[in-house]
Amino acid sequence: MTEAPIQHGGGISAAAERHGGRPEDWLDLSTGINPCPVALPAVDAAAWHRLPDRGRLDATRKAAARYYRSDSCLPLPVPGTQAAIQLLPRLVPAGRRVAILSPTYGEYARVLRAAGCVVDEIGTLDGVGDDHGLVVAVNPNNPDGRLHRPEELLQVRDRLARSGGTMVVDEAFGDMEPGASLSAHAGIAPGLVVFRSFGKFFGLAGLRLGFVLGEERLLADFAEWLGPWAVSGPALTIATGLMAGDCTPIRQSIAERKSALDAVLRHSGLDVVGGTALFSLVSHSRAADLYEALCRQHVLVRPFAYDRTWLRFGLAPDVAADRRLAQALTLALTPARPLALPSA
Amino acid sequence: MTEAPIQHGGGISAAAERHGGRPEDWLDLSTGINPCPVALPAVDAAAWHRLPDRGRLDATRKAAARYYRSDSCLPLPVPGTQAAIQLLPRLVPAGRRVAILSPTYGEYARVLRAAGCVVDEIGTLDGVGDDHGLVVAVNPNNPDGRLHRPEELLQVRDRLARSGGTMVVDEAFGDMEPGASLSAHAGIAPGLVVFRSFGKFFGLAGLRLGFVLGEERLLADFAEWLGPWAVSGPALTIATGLMAGDCTPIRQSIAERKSALDAVLRHSGLDVVGGTALFSLVSHSRAADLYEALCRQHVLVRPFAYDRTWLRFGLAPDVAADRRLAQALTLALTPARPLALPSA
Repeated sequence: MTEAPIQHGGGISAAAERHGGRPEDWLDLSTGINPCPVALPAVDAAAWHRLPDRGRLDATRKAAARYYRSDSCLPLPVPGTQAAIQLLPRLVPAGRRVAILSPTYGEYARVLRAAGCVVDEIGTLDGVGDDHGLVVAVNPNNPDGRLHRPEELLQVRDRLARSGGTMVVDEAFGDMEPGASLSAHAGIAPGLVVFRSFGKFFGLAGLRLGFVLGEERLLADFAEWLGPWAVSGPALTIATGLMAGDCTPIRQSIAERKSALDAVLRHSGLDVVGGTALFSLVSHSRAADLYEALCRQHVLVRPFAYDRTWLRFGLAPDVAADRRLAQALTLALTPARPLALPSA
Repeated sequence: MTEAPIQHGGGISAAAERHGGRPEDWLDLSTGINPCPVALPAVDAAAWHRLPDRGRLDATRKAAARYYRSDSCLPLPVPGTQAAIQLLPRLVPAGRRVAILSPTYGEYARVLRAAGCVVDEIGTLDGVGDDHGLVVAVNPNNPDGRLHRPEELLQVRDRLARSGGTMVVDEAFGDMEPGASLSAHAGIAPGLVVFRSFGKFFGLAGLRLGFVLGEERLLADFAEWLGPWAVSGPALTIATGLMAGDCTPIRQSIAERKSALDAVLRHSGLDVVGGTALFSLVSHSRAADLYEALCRQHVLVRPFAYDRTWLRFGLAPDVAADRRLAQALTLALTPARPLALPSA
């Protein structure tokens, strides 16, 4: 491994080792995952027992096409968006550079650079040049929530496609923003690839499931690169059931949890500078100290090596957790008992 | 996709479309999976909900080290052996050829050739030459069950390692042959990589879980190529539980099912020419007709494009299925009502 590991959400075991407590007793706000997972639909015994066959795969692809409102392609299930990111170096035409709309999810730059690609972290879409053969935009963006209109992204796609380039739009946090989605364009717009995450909105990140949308030829390439049976039978089965169901209660729950989080953050005097429906981004001059003070109270949030003033807060699961976060913030931020607290 | 698709086990939907019947009513003997899956251990809610974190991963790796009797490495979980096969082209040193002990599982040649490697399908280990930088041996072999002694494989590994080459030993069907395993050597023998399949022995192929054993540096490469969270939380959790349990009843059940299968095949007058604990290989001059006649009775077995006289029969799940297979074979093989039967 040539790159330093990126600090990701999901590192609760490591945090508990440093600061004590059982991992299950921590309040984990370090991810952007719906903290109220839906009830699992029944999984038939064959889903566990057999290799997932074409019938099971096709059912999931049809359900995903409806759920993502994509008439133009059958989304390809992949074992998490990360698995698709790992394949992106293969989409970079020889001799061309990569542009990543930044700052954003760090795995794009890490994976592409590890594969030898030249990566430009561009601040706006105006930074896309003729020498870029692959452009990555996370929309809405993680962690700042910046949202591009479909037309802006499609314009860049037009330019890229004319020179054989590819535009990747990662809509991992897009389930609550259907109006901004390019999913309906993915099967018919050459050079457009859309990534969708299943686990974040449904609260089932452990399943490892995402979807790639794009032209049929391109999806065949991804399928070939991943090989047969890339996604588990239970993941396909659960996703098929949930995507066909009524998602209104999930939307309502996420919206309610998001308001509660922002209320806690604002009440604590914190400056919410961005976010999506599944997390809020806070800017604070002593963010690193605040992070540590929260850790000492066994509350894990997400710091960023590239911006030491930012902390990302995921949604808390319920009112009790809201209260716990509020108390932890009070203790961490009270001037009389400032950040260097003894271990809680 | 440049290669014609290989016919794999797990294609019951496709078979049912051609020959009728509901997929769940077919007798699927086309795979080498234990037909009597063990009871699933409890899966905690966090395994579904959260990204699988380091604690969960480490627990699985420790359980796998014990289960595979590997003191010398912590086996790396991968989302099915197939996912590891897809990465093998990266292990081929520039300018060197690949040798695959053949005939064997077809995905090795397909994946390596698709990546541009020059592949020699060798009949015996004597075919390994100095220009081979990667050698693949499935042990015991699929589908003929040929079993190499550890010393034979280690000798080839010695030669390869001296020139920076790698020996891959796929022990997908090795759980019932612990004496032939190289798992204990994998962490300390440079250039040796062992693949293990979790789903076949435990009857949980839908989980998508395998393990890679090898030197730490090599496992770090595989982990890097797969990216974080490659295996689902439920798969890790279930495997950790089952690998720590008593596997004696599983072994007994497989041995009992295997004897029952061979008794049915021999009673039908078929010539069993090879196999492992999880399948039997039959040679028959009119294997293609026999395959079709079984399909018409909604019994799916495994034909081979490269040897039209071979059919592979997986284990039947119970005595009723043994009887169904016996009757289907009688009908298919009776000279008075030969192979061209009307649809059953």
